[in-house]
Amino acid sequence: MKSNPIFSGVIAPALTPFGEDGSPDPDRFVDHCEWLLEDGCTGLAPFGTTSEANSLGLDERMELLEELIDAGIDPSKLMPGTGTCSTADTAILTQHAVDLGCGGVLMLPPFYYKNPSEEGLFRYFADVIDEVGDDRLRIYLYHIPPVAQVGFPLSLIGRLKKEFPEIVVGLKDSSGDWNNMKAILEAFPDFELFPGSELYLLQGLRAGSVGTISATANISARAMRDLYDNWQSSGADALQEKISAMRKTVQTYPVIPLLKSVIAHYREDAGWADVRPPFVPMPQAEAEKAIRQLADQHGFTLAFEDEGDDD
Amino acid sequence: MKSNPIFSGVIAPALTPFGEDGSPDPDRFVDHCEWLLEDGCTGLAPFGTTSEANSLGLDERMELLEELIDAGIDPSKLMPGTGTCSTADTAILTQHAVDLGCGGVLMLPPFYYKNPSEEGLFRYFADVIDEVGDDRLRIYLYHIPPVAQVGFPLSLIGRLKKEFPEIVVGLKDSSGDWNNMKAILEAFPDFELFPGSELYLLQGLRAGSVGTISATANISARAMRDLYDNWQSSGADALQEKISAMRKTVQTYPVIPLLKSVIAHYREDAGWADVRPPFVPMPQAEAEKAIRQLADQHGFTLAFEDEGDDD
Repeated sequence: MKSNPIFSGVIAPALTPFGEDGSPDPDRFVDHCEWLLEDGCTGLAPFGTTSEANSLGLDERMELLEELIDAGIDPSKLMPGTGTCSTADTAILTQHAVDLGCGGVLMLPPFYYKNPSEEGLFRYFADVIDEVGDDRLRIYLYHIPPVAQVGFPLSLIGRLKKEFPEIVVGLKDSSGDWNNMKAILEAFPDFELFPGSELYLLQGLRAGSVGTISATANISARAMRDLYDNWQSSGADALQEKISAMRKTVQTYPVIPLLKSVIAHYREDAGWADVRPPFVPMPQAEAEKAIRQLADQHGFTLAFEDEGDDD
Repeated sequence: MKSNPIFSGVIAPALTPFGEDGSPDPDRFVDHCEWLLEDGCTGLAPFGTTSEANSLGLDERMELLEELIDAGIDPSKLMPGTGTCSTADTAILTQHAVDLGCGGVLMLPPFYYKNPSEEGLFRYFADVIDEVGDDRLRIYLYHIPPVAQVGFPLSLIGRLKKEFPEIVVGLKDSSGDWNNMKAILEAFPDFELFPGSELYLLQGLRAGSVGTISATANISARAMRDLYDNWQSSGADALQEKISAMRKTVQTYPVIPLLKSVIAHYREDAGWADVRPPFVPMPQAEAEKAIRQLADQHGFTLAFEDEGDDD
């Protein structure tokens, strides 16, 4: 594992709640992010895939980030997603995050044009870094080929890391391919690698990764944090088994609508379940069934102190 | 063919030239668009795939559109691309285009999340239409599954057309699948269908489409326009054959870098060849070879009156 990583532990790509008019709801968002940090998250990656970031407008993203920091959340714990298809908009979002003091940014590759050349992708990141032109910038590459289609081959990671050693410091690997994560860890032992699913949390830590950035951390960061804090203990395998079983159940549903329905249920706040198209909310009956399944099979429940009557 | 279509004929998804600092170059852009209309284009679709639209920032797109109209180009001939991954930004770009008097907009589906449900896609467009809330809005759906991955199944087109008959008026079909174009024409004979390649120009016109929106129109609109104007003549098949042969040669190269290199060559303006990452410019030698091939095999050449010494 890298010594003194900038980010480590359990990081949630925070869900983005919407208000009745369909706009992002800053109050619900701040409440959720504050709760995530209480629930065991060591950091937050707002505007990830799970956050429906690409369904938000540029201005909406910047305003929500400002809300978090205005509410007192330590910006050094924030790794907002800032990657768009264009160097111009990516530079705008990235500069904004750096200016707010964010500890890092999570950057998708340009994902509209398919099968770009490695040279083209290298130039993309070099242009963004040049445009931002700020020594404080720390980039975590966001490798999620099942969604973005465009990913980061090992040779591209190597080239970016070599050219920008102080800036390109890590990667979130949502390939779901352990062999890819292993290859990155072996090739770049001083890189901050985050598996994009807690299925690989223990395996990753044993091989040198620094934690996980996982959708499920929006509802069950506590269990992941317990494992992260005790991964060298004798009980680690049992903890991982329990976490993996829960994750596998979550994955049988449309993940983003499910996670929002879970929060809506335990917060007794139906509006929390709203999603932006192209997603659609889970039908109420299906959501209730899923929530029962998580409770029955995995003992999963949430308690929000604010509500009181949940306890 | 639809009677009295809003758009018809040969429409170029205008290339976006860049200046030395990497920003879009409004002067080169306006010159190119004015020339396209002289060269036979009946309309322009700035900010299409060929325009590298998704490599531009939101502000850059809006500024370039304003430049065209400020330069005196009739906005009713403009069908700018306004589709992004988010309802918020798509509504901003669309409202901007409508306010400027554009005849229509070309709208990609939200293309980040893969395999969205048809219901989710329907809600996406319904939300954008509601958000813009303007009777002047005319939407051309942009079906380009090889790039966007997310496309428009026939049932979705039917539902959008039924719900918004005055607004959802046409589609650009860049699937490269004639059977899909044929199915749309048969199901919706009053729809303005544009094949996304001139390979289908004559076949399309005979089956009821209204023209083509094609990348190649950036360099050879004149030949397409001749065919469009004479498609019912006895020489139409021979014209189509010639056009198709040229297109097939163009397609053996990376199309966007090639088209820009062709313009750079005949305008004697090397900077025209610049592209934004993730594209890379064609190496000079490869570009020269391609330009020679187009000249030798297809008699292709361009003359720009401004330069004089090209003639």
